[in-house]
Amino acid sequence: MFSITVRDHMMVAHSFQGEVFGPAQRLHGATFVVDATFRRNELDEDNIVVDIGLATNELRAVVAELNYRNLDDEKEFDGVNTSTEYLAKFIADRLVDRIHAGALGEGALGIAQVAVTLHESHIAWASFERTV
Amino acid sequence: MFSITVRDHMMVAHSFQGEVFGPAQRLHGATFVVDATFRRNELDEDNIVVDIGLATNELRAVVAELNYRNLDDEKEFDGVNTSTEYLAKFIADRLVDRIHAGALGEGALGIAQVAVTLHESHIAWASFERTV
Amino acid sequence: MFSITVRDHMMVAHSFQGEVFGPAQRLHGATFVVDATFRRNELDEDNIVVDIGLATNELRAVVAELNYRNLDDEKEFDGVNTSTEYLAKFIADRLVDRIHAGALGEGALGIAQVAVTLHESHIAWASFERTV
Amino acid sequence: MFSITVRDHMMVAHSFQGEVFGPAQRLHGATFVVDATFRRNELDEDNIVVDIGLATNELRAVVAELNYRNLDDEKEFDGVNTSTEYLAKFIADRLVDRIHAGALGEGALGIAQVAVTLHESHIAWASFERTV
Amino acid sequence: MFSITVRDHMMVAHSFQGEVFGPAQRLHGATFVVDATFRRNELDEDNIVVDIGLATNELRAVVAELNYRNLDDEKEFDGVNTSTEYLAKFIADRLVDRIHAGALGEGALGIAQVAVTLHESHIAWASFERTV
Amino acid sequence: MFSITVRDHMMVAHSFQGEVFGPAQRLHGATFVVDATFRRNELDEDNIVVDIGLATNELRAVVAELNYRNLDDEKEFDGVNTSTEYLAKFIADRLVDRIHAGALGEGALGIAQVAVTLHESHIAWASFERTV
Repeated sequence: MFSITVRDHMMVAHSFQGEVFGPAQRLHGATFVVDATFRRNELDEDNIVVDIGLATNELRAVVAELNYRNLDDEKEFDGVNTSTEYLAKFIADRLVDRIHAGALGEGALGIAQVAVTLHESHIAWASFERTV
Repeated sequence: MFSITVRDHMMVAHSFQGEVFGPAQRLHGATFVVDATFRRNELDEDNIVVDIGLATNELRAVVAELNYRNLDDEKEFDGVNTSTEYLAKFIADRLVDRIHAGALGEGALGIAQVAVTLHESHIAWASFERTV
Repeated sequence: MFSITVRDHMMVAHSFQGEVFGPAQRLHGATFVVDATFRRNELDEDNIVVDIGLATNELRAVVAELNYRNLDDEKEFDGVNTSTEYLAKFIADRLVDRIHAGALGEGALGIAQVAVTLHESHIAWASFERTV
Repeated sequence: MFSITVRDHMMVAHSFQGEVFGPAQRLHGATFVVDATFRRNELDEDNIVVDIGLATNELRAVVAELNYRNLDDEKEFDGVNTSTEYLAKFIADRLVDRIHAGALGEGALGIAQVAVTLHESHIAWASFERTV
Repeated sequence: MFSITVRDHMMVAHSFQGEVFGPAQRLHGATFVVDATFRRNELDEDNIVVDIGLATNELRAVVAELNYRNLDDEKEFDGVNTSTEYLAKFIADRLVDRIHAGALGEGALGIAQVAVTLHESHIAWASFERTV
Repeated sequence: MFSITVRDHMMVAHSFQGEVFGPAQRLHGATFVVDATFRRNELDEDNIVVDIGLATNELRAVVAELNYRNLDDEKEFDGVNTSTEYLAKFIADRLVDRIHAGALGEGALGIAQVAVTLHESHIAWASFERTV
């Protein structure tokens, strides 16, 4: 199995609902350093998993939808706890949509799995992985 | 598959038995930076894998049993080579016990796997992963 | 010159005033990984710059005043752009106050300089350093 | 499942064939920080996955074949795009050969999988994993 | 003293002249992760050292002159050993030129020092710092 | 001012004397990731601060004197608290001795300062710097 990973980041505000979250129920924020991994069994005809330039651009485009925002104000997340693990899935799902739409190139249609890791600090991170 | 990881560390002395270990047969020490990963297929009702606060506390409690100790003097490790990979399993097993005991919350009973990575330096680390 | 550094982090929301900030004028957030450095010319009688445990506790106490907050709602920062470099100075000044108050121990009165670095992402950070 | 990982690096020149590579079609270079992971289900009789010293030596030997070279001039890579993911496989395959040849010790014959990650920068890396 | 640092990277080929360089006399390559630091005594009227967006753009522009190139073929470096420390100075000097030309904004004219660090691997890096 | 830094590590056991150290009064251990920095105002005739290969070798030789040892058993440290900051000075002083002895090459006699940082974990490190 081959994979490539590209990294970007976003800076968002949000708050959580539920006693388990303690002080994180208050409006606060986070930098999420975002790692997007693309996996496949065989390389494409250019000998790559996917073009790193295209992967970087598409990750940036997905992250840009969330960057510099208060997620509590986004209709998409109404009534949703935008936990780190939830946001990892949100970004992974968007990347899979873009693969299917051809935005990562024709060769990228051979990608089998996508995994996204969001680092919320030097001591905590979350991931989500799925098939394409 | 979702996961969250939390990080802590411990500083221990120990020595190894066996020619393969060369100078590490002498009493020496290590800082182990410990990453504990919890994985599950679906998020709980709070939209998380497990509360990061609880996960951090329980990891700290497990690590505290070993921290600032000479492992050669601990009965638990009598006659055991406390290699990095062995200690990763030791910590993972303790975390699974705590999940079963409910220490990570009721929602955490849905955790499917635990993985523990111990970084012994900037150029070497070891992991153990198991089902819950 | 000797120094020791300890690390903690905080997760805050805020927004900036001024066209130069572009999309960061919107309410957003950041994880700041905070490194506090203490410097002196000679070690104290315990052969240390300052006790790492005390330094860690005091840094945590200073960071706790800001953690999980929307800085736009804090009176202390009314009309202030809470830039990364400004927050580095804010934390450094608080640490110096605590040194003078004896919170880092008597030996710590010999500390000559404090420097604070706030990492806002994997590609940007800011620092402030001052004499004690 | 247990694993250990050791890290080394290499500094090579190369160029790519194919419009998808843009400016990387020019002769350029890269530092690849190389992580080699060895996995197995049970530890050997010394309570380890493989001796870290031997693993480090063998990784260094494999990396030395490529280090400080222009890969475009190496017959082995004639007509091949030496992408990061391709080089990860190249190194993994060589390590598996060495395991089979006994170079990592008799106990290492129990290694089940090898994975190699090449970090080409702070924002991009690639991996290959295979069974032994 | 305040500072901000922004990070970018470049991937170049080059070779060195001189026996001291051993195998690095052969054509090889490197990824340089480039950290550019800007320092000043007082913040500007926006409460910053320099706009991070502008600093990032200007660093990228300077790095782009070298990126994906074989430095041995660049007239600018004819007969020059393009060591990591030399390249750190090259980039720092270019950034100072851009500060003087106003490319980092009017407020940036108050910057007192520039420092550039080039990481050539996980175990070696070089820096150059100068006044503006 | 130019500098280069090279990294190595060591794994030692030790204990501390003094109530301030709390549980670290027990015999425990640490991995110290060691960064040695060499600074000078002008590059030598090879356009470098010092040969990275020689610097790496000499750092390794100094570190080897301490590696895989219980510092409490070393006569050199009898009655001494081998704190992280103290060990940083110990290594820096040894490196300066080696510069003076010519072990880093004739060009290295132009080195003006040496700084050593010892990372004891992901959240604490200490440094010492001195003139040559």
